[in-house]
Amino acid sequence: MTYFLMSRRTAAALATSGEVLRLIRTGEAVTRSDLGRVTGLSRPAVSLRVSELIEHGLVVEDSDGPSTGGRPPTRLVFNAAGGVILTAALGASRTQIAVCDLSGTALERTDLAIDVEEGPGAVLPLVLKTWADLLGDRPASLVRGVGMGVPATVEFAAGRAESARVMASWTGVVIPPIIAERFPVPVFVDNDVNVIAIGEHRAAYADQVADLLYVKVSTRIGAGIVAGGQILRGALGAAGEIGHIPVQHGSGVLCRCGNVDCVDSVASGTAILRDLRERGRDVTSLADVVALVRAGDAETMTIVREAGRNLGEVIATAVNVLNPSVVVLGGEVAEAFQPLVGAVREVVYRRSTALATRNLRIELSRLGPGAGITGCALMVVDHVLAPDVIDAGLAAQPL
Amino acid sequence: MTYFLMSRRTAAALATSGEVLRLIRTGEAVTRSDLGRVTGLSRPAVSLRVSELIEHGLVVEDSDGPSTGGRPPTRLVFNAAGGVILTAALGASRTQIAVCDLSGTALERTDLAIDVEEGPGAVLPLVLKTWADLLGDRPASLVRGVGMGVPATVEFAAGRAESARVMASWTGVVIPPIIAERFPVPVFVDNDVNVIAIGEHRAAYADQVADLLYVKVSTRIGAGIVAGGQILRGALGAAGEIGHIPVQHGSGVLCRCGNVDCVDSVASGTAILRDLRERGRDVTSLADVVALVRAGDAETMTIVREAGRNLGEVIATAVNVLNPSVVVLGGEVAEAFQPLVGAVREVVYRRSTALATRNLRIELSRLGPGAGITGCALMVVDHVLAPDVIDAGLAAQPL
Repeated sequence: MTYFLMSRRTAAALATSGEVLRLIRTGEAVTRSDLGRVTGLSRPAVSLRVSELIEHGLVVEDSDGPSTGGRPPTRLVFNAAGGVILTAALGASRTQIAVCDLSGTALERTDLAIDVEEGPGAVLPLVLKTWADLLGDRPASLVRGVGMGVPATVEFAAGRAESARVMASWTGVVIPPIIAERFPVPVFVDNDVNVIAIGEHRAAYADQVADLLYVKVSTRIGAGIVAGGQILRGALGAAGEIGHIPVQHGSGVLCRCGNVDCVDSVASGTAILRDLRERGRDVTSLADVVALVRAGDAETMTIVREAGRNLGEVIATAVNVLNPSVVVLGGEVAEAFQPLVGAVREVVYRRSTALATRNLRIELSRLGPGAGITGCALMVVDHVLAPDVIDAGLAAQPL
Repeated sequence: MTYFLMSRRTAAALATSGEVLRLIRTGEAVTRSDLGRVTGLSRPAVSLRVSELIEHGLVVEDSDGPSTGGRPPTRLVFNAAGGVILTAALGASRTQIAVCDLSGTALERTDLAIDVEEGPGAVLPLVLKTWADLLGDRPASLVRGVGMGVPATVEFAAGRAESARVMASWTGVVIPPIIAERFPVPVFVDNDVNVIAIGEHRAAYADQVADLLYVKVSTRIGAGIVAGGQILRGALGAAGEIGHIPVQHGSGVLCRCGNVDCVDSVASGTAILRDLRERGRDVTSLADVVALVRAGDAETMTIVREAGRNLGEVIATAVNVLNPSVVVLGGEVAEAFQPLVGAVREVVYRRSTALATRNLRIELSRLGPGAGITGCALMVVDHVLAPDVIDAGLAAQPL
């Protein structure tokens, strides 16, 4: 909406090494002459910045460019192997630990059976040791950052994990300094659903979409919001806590929060299991429910669809508030039950406003269970490779 | 959540003239020695940047500093008179036009009775002429930007006013180039409620609060969302369109959108008037309703409180999604009816989650009807005085 006339000189003044790296990473400019054209920098100035990035291991020259008869210009490629990110997606039941490259791909990965309720004193040393084991004989200097997702609300300003219910034994703990003592690099901690939202967004949609709503439907229901390309955290990190929004057509189910008809109490995996058991069905896990749906059991299908409609009501409201381009449904319940996803679509397209649904896509998670690890890595990469951070780092470590 | 070790040299490398202006504007550094200490710049480098800002009229020296016996250091002050912003808050019934200084204060102001439905061909020339009249003999070079709020959804990427209902005759119009033809400066256009949200946030809360939800309760209901200090617009500029979220305890009222029990159809000024008329009361305007409330009319109080409870339900949901620090209630209905505000508070504190309401304030608009003009000005000021924009401008116009 703004119109600026920017001179070549002005553009060049803004084209730092960090900006040059950004252009190479995004593919906006992949040769030295591209860079000169896009930035307005002189040839020597481009070369200086590119050399600096190559020396610091962030860019490599790729000589396998397409042959055009003459000597092809050297392609410049972001070097995803130029560093690693340590990642941990802590879950209530399962924790994934990985060493990722700078593209978010896991180089080493393991699952740990940790009970996060045992608290940081038990869990963090185990995570630190696992990272050290996974790093193997890679030099510690390769570690550029640490990313962690925790199943709790994270107060971002203070860096405390905050939740009386889910992770009571972690309340008030400031995680980053504990990690930074062993790995002195930038440490990012966020809520597990926010981390997945980052992963889904950056890995599958970042090029096309700035506004995405990720809804996790598992034993509980929660959401992560990407708005304008950034995670929306809210004042206390509690944004996206949609589980306790009441549904319109509830039947008075008491929620663990004390209110009635919260979507968590009528549409989560826990609620679906409870509803089937109340009807005398012998189900102990979601796998049993999946089997019933696959077998075409009418009663189960009805319950799953009703859960989807209730969930759809709340998502329709969130869509009116946020106007995302994409709603991504993830979590074991959404991933298992196509009828639930169908019911969500039906209600959202009916109940959200015409403008909010005009280009809206409602899709299943593309990353599935690996989204947490990818999200942890990309959350860190986006920050440590941001142009201003790169420029500050290069200024602090001149060649 | 991130820890960076930044050398003095690195900090100094980032301390451009734009950054120096930011420090002066925010009061973080108000003398040359402050600036040296905060930025790590040398004395000559500080002086160079300050001189540049003074020459361009953005900073003035204030010699009236407090006397401390010796010669006091010269205080540097942001020069709000160093430029003007042309503003127009277009409303369905009333349009405010103003020339504001760089602090958002209106220097000249007038109200126009324009019917926006007459379309841009009729309205924009009148607005342009009014700005020229209000400018008087101020030089055109003083104009640093234009800000406009329109009663329609604004597609931000494309800059088109988009709404079949409210401003049908403007659909598809790209406003900025039309304005820029007469005033060749950055032009910003946004939805009227977003503009008010910017005004309320920046004028009353910006120092303390990054997440604010502004709800306008007038003939219609709409919201503007500030998240992380920025307006949240969504994919098509439709974020904050909360008017068509259904309320839980509706009685089947048909909304103009075709759905039932939208909050707009049960809690807006229009709805309150309709409910009173249906009960045979002789009310033609909100002033009549205000008189009844002041007189303690029980039926009217009940209707107003019920509207507040319905509105509170929808705000409670938005609070769970967004986790703002402050909810600001504005618009003629909220400003007139204390019982409605009380009912909103009651429902939000009961129905939003404990964490989302822990530090939540629910307050009446502080700016009142002038919020639109202030918001238009500050929307522009925030952009044209941003450090990178200032630096680009200075590079393009060297002394």
